[in-house]
Amino acid sequence: MSQEIILTGDRPTGPLHLGHYVGSLCNRIRLQDTYKQFVMIADVQALTDNYETPDKVRKNVLEVALDYLAVGINPNKSTIFIQSMIPEIAELTVFYLNLVTVARLRRNPTVKTEIAQKGYGEHLTAGFLMYPVSQAADITVVKGAIVPVGEDQLPMIEQTNEIVRAFNRIYNTDVLKEAKALIPKVARLSGIDGKAKMSKSLGNAIFLSDSADVVAKKVMQMYTDPDHIRVEDPGKIEGNVVFSYLDIFDTDQDEVQKLKEHYQRGGLGDVKVKRRLADVLNTFLDPIRTKRAQLACDPQVVMDIVLEGTRQTRLVAQQTMHEVRKAMHLDY
Amino acid sequence: MSQEIILTGDRPTGPLHLGHYVGSLCNRIRLQDTYKQFVMIADVQALTDNYETPDKVRKNVLEVALDYLAVGINPNKSTIFIQSMIPEIAELTVFYLNLVTVARLRRNPTVKTEIAQKGYGEHLTAGFLMYPVSQAADITVVKGAIVPVGEDQLPMIEQTNEIVRAFNRIYNTDVLKEAKALIPKVARLSGIDGKAKMSKSLGNAIFLSDSADVVAKKVMQMYTDPDHIRVEDPGKIEGNVVFSYLDIFDTDQDEVQKLKEHYQRGGLGDVKVKRRLADVLNTFLDPIRTKRAQLACDPQVVMDIVLEGTRQTRLVAQQTMHEVRKAMHLDY
Repeated sequence: MSQEIILTGDRPTGPLHLGHYVGSLCNRIRLQDTYKQFVMIADVQALTDNYETPDKVRKNVLEVALDYLAVGINPNKSTIFIQSMIPEIAELTVFYLNLVTVARLRRNPTVKTEIAQKGYGEHLTAGFLMYPVSQAADITVVKGAIVPVGEDQLPMIEQTNEIVRAFNRIYNTDVLKEAKALIPKVARLSGIDGKAKMSKSLGNAIFLSDSADVVAKKVMQMYTDPDHIRVEDPGKIEGNVVFSYLDIFDTDQDEVQKLKEHYQRGGLGDVKVKRRLADVLNTFLDPIRTKRAQLACDPQVVMDIVLEGTRQTRLVAQQTMHEVRKAMHLDY
Repeated sequence: MSQEIILTGDRPTGPLHLGHYVGSLCNRIRLQDTYKQFVMIADVQALTDNYETPDKVRKNVLEVALDYLAVGINPNKSTIFIQSMIPEIAELTVFYLNLVTVARLRRNPTVKTEIAQKGYGEHLTAGFLMYPVSQAADITVVKGAIVPVGEDQLPMIEQTNEIVRAFNRIYNTDVLKEAKALIPKVARLSGIDGKAKMSKSLGNAIFLSDSADVVAKKVMQMYTDPDHIRVEDPGKIEGNVVFSYLDIFDTDQDEVQKLKEHYQRGGLGDVKVKRRLADVLNTFLDPIRTKRAQLACDPQVVMDIVLEGTRQTRLVAQQTMHEVRKAMHLDY
């Protein structure tokens, strides 16, 4: 029985945080038992908007690998690999660029939003505009059938499947496979400042590698109910980051329910709830931190795991490329 | 003593013609004695505007290789290789795309003219817009110092050198080398219809592989002086394709001078001059045709020569890529 293939991964631009855990890592730990899962450390994609700081990308390849292993991505079940070490991805990208118009890339909603946010204007690089094509290569090089993505990333899967269909039609083949998006059920984790998205660049993240003290400090800064001034005042639960985290991470949901009622009634101070959350998070993070610290003592062991995953991925990529070359009459 | 490196080549979209001979092949035969010359069969570039007919590109890889060897490109002096078999070119292309803005690519005069000529409009593919970046990868992957090009291709060398400077500056290295254009002294060969450029797509070409009969027939169709109606009329030399060919290919230039004077005086018919040109061209083409026919008997021998050149090129490309990866901190 052949397993369905998942492609997933992260850009190595910083260590991973609780938002990554809730949004994707916990799913990967679950999915790796039933799927053939490739987890890509996307250094080439990270370079599209970090090409001037390659040392930052390099450093974070190891950080991300440490996070993966610490959190429970099991290299015996999942194949972790480094994108830049699979030249077949670059080869596919170059071939796929012929199958996509510049106008189509400009219309890609995800890229359009990002270009506006980053204010690129005339400075938009070719590399950034093309990155959805590179993603199509990432997915198809391992014949990914399932790609776990957020709602906002759906246009990427659409772009990939357009390329797949164009390729198969033009080269009269069925070598490439369309991919399905898998949208996680868990709601996105908000930042500690209450913004919808936790992100390193927004400075509102709790990292998996943060120490217990740092976690406690960040929890104390958390956005709660700005109108909840005195302990005896009634407080709001909606939009209160502390309670939204307790909903996700606290293993005693009955107690959370009681705390919510008390908070809404009045008489429960923010500090008390925050102390509970700090404990809950540190209980959750402690084993991850311990494992991470152990692994970090010998980075070469970690890199060896990633390099072995890369070697395995390369074999799959070479097979795909072999079939692609044959379909394109480039099998000299 | 290290030799300077030349990169040159052709898109395998059809057999080579006399225009290629005059414009580039004869230079290559000369230059291969004093330079380290790489001759690229640019199948990946050919696909940017022939991606729907890969079999045409595939077929012409062998045709172009046959032309090269028949005409005197010596595989012991020049290294002939197939572009698509050097994945390092695709890898460099992907990295270089970060160093070029979309606006800059749109301003490239050569590409701009081609886009207008081909009437791409909204259908402009990303692959076509990017091909100057791919050319920068072709040149730099072998550390090409000299690139023989026509005047109209100068913007390509400029684009390459912009990328080289950006790369060396950003990654604080001198791995990549700027390239110099080498503009051939010989004027461009006009088509048999009198148009400035001989080209397969314009249908005005004499191919190196044309039979003696076909050459004679094409010469008979040549554009001369449209006002030279009767033999006794004085005829014009300027813009007269037959004489412009005799200038280049006739080994007896004294006789050509006499014919010109006679033609201008009147009393010399087009057919007579054309018969001479047909003889001159067939004398020139005969040894090429003979060698080509011999080689064509055993295509595998030809392909083996190209594959050996490709193997040698790959070694150079891998060395370049090794240095590039080091500069970019991607040497895991």
